[in-house]
Amino acid sequence: MKQAVVIGISGGTGSGKTTLANRLKEYFCDDITLICQDYYYKSFDELSFEERRKLNFDHPDAFDNELLVEQVKLLKAFKPVDRPVYSFTEYKRLERTVREEARHVIIVEGLMIFTIPALVDLMDIKIFVDTDADIRLIRRLKRDIQERGRSIDSVIDQYLGTVKPMHEAFVEPSKRKADIIIPEGGLNEVAYEMIANKIRSIIEAKYTLVTKNT
Amino acid sequence: MKQAVVIGISGGTGSGKTTLANRLKEYFCDDITLICQDYYYKSFDELSFEERRKLNFDHPDAFDNELLVEQVKLLKAFKPVDRPVYSFTEYKRLERTVREEARHVIIVEGLMIFTIPALVDLMDIKIFVDTDADIRLIRRLKRDIQERGRSIDSVIDQYLGTVKPMHEAFVEPSKRKADIIIPEGGLNEVAYEMIANKIRSIIEAKYTLVTKNT
Repeated sequence: MKQAVVIGISGGTGSGKTTLANRLKEYFCDDITLICQDYYYKSFDELSFEERRKLNFDHPDAFDNELLVEQVKLLKAFKPVDRPVYSFTEYKRLERTVREEARHVIIVEGLMIFTIPALVDLMDIKIFVDTDADIRLIRRLKRDIQERGRSIDSVIDQYLGTVKPMHEAFVEPSKRKADIIIPEGGLNEVAYEMIANKIRSIIEAKYTLVTKNT
Repeated sequence: MKQAVVIGISGGTGSGKTTLANRLKEYFCDDITLICQDYYYKSFDELSFEERRKLNFDHPDAFDNELLVEQVKLLKAFKPVDRPVYSFTEYKRLERTVREEARHVIIVEGLMIFTIPALVDLMDIKIFVDTDADIRLIRRLKRDIQERGRSIDSVIDQYLGTVKPMHEAFVEPSKRKADIIIPEGGLNEVAYEMIANKIRSIIEAKYTLVTKNT
């Protein structure tokens, strides 16, 4: 049975995991499918906008993990999926979906992906991006203040209130699931090259196999 | 100028770094050269056997780092070296040497290799094998008692007296030099495959280059 190779990329907020996943997606384009856990935030349609805004988005239960597992299972079995789209301005899932095609390599990227045993079971390679907490905080401050127009106090309050305790309770312990730990994420050239090289060899081997079989 | 790719593999005692390096050497045979820092223990010929036996072998100064750097520099420049041979029963360097040929990939393996800046500068890929301290102690106990006939008390005394403090002072901080951190060393199949894949691609690229140039 034809199966895709599933690569998990996790790490704390500001670790560089998204940069790494995006670099790989940009480089390999249509040869890989990138699935972000952020697509799967729960909608909580029964709550008001204000109530939704105050939810703890740094807890594993904030995500629709069942749907995430189901869709990664389908992609691994080489079946396309229509994945959800989440709006970070409305704090809810949108009506529309996005078609993700089946490819030889599936990258699953996200904060809490290694806390979901059924998802971990689907992964062939588990990469944890490990960056010092102070550097991660600096990146988050810059991103939330410069790109999202938030105040320094609100970023720090959220960081101390949920981001840090949830990191320590869920993200940091999930590092033990990793096959490979890479410092600094997307900026680590040596690790990037090694991962890209591995993906290249998977893609080449799969194509060779397909060619040989036909 | 023709240059070899230098891969450093470090980690604490019992981490699995030697198993990883040996697996790679067995697999790639004459396509890679393996240099172990242990070959470069200083001889201290002026001391008696009893005095030599009591030296702190877990300190960076226990090694002839100058010779190690010089020989890795030569290997990187594609020149063969005659490396020293150390006797662990006599606690001294032997008269004879071993010829190490120049190859496209040089693996340098050892406890303290990331503590030597001039050696780190020669490395293209730096891998740190990270294993829990209790697991590392168990492996060391088994090795020293079963293979080296030592008593449990002498192993624990040495562990608490020098191995652990030297690990914390030198080995653990040197992890920050790593490009890639791999848990469990030689037993980590996913990481092994990724590193082997990278080496394979370096060797293939070098041979292609050589073929194209001739």
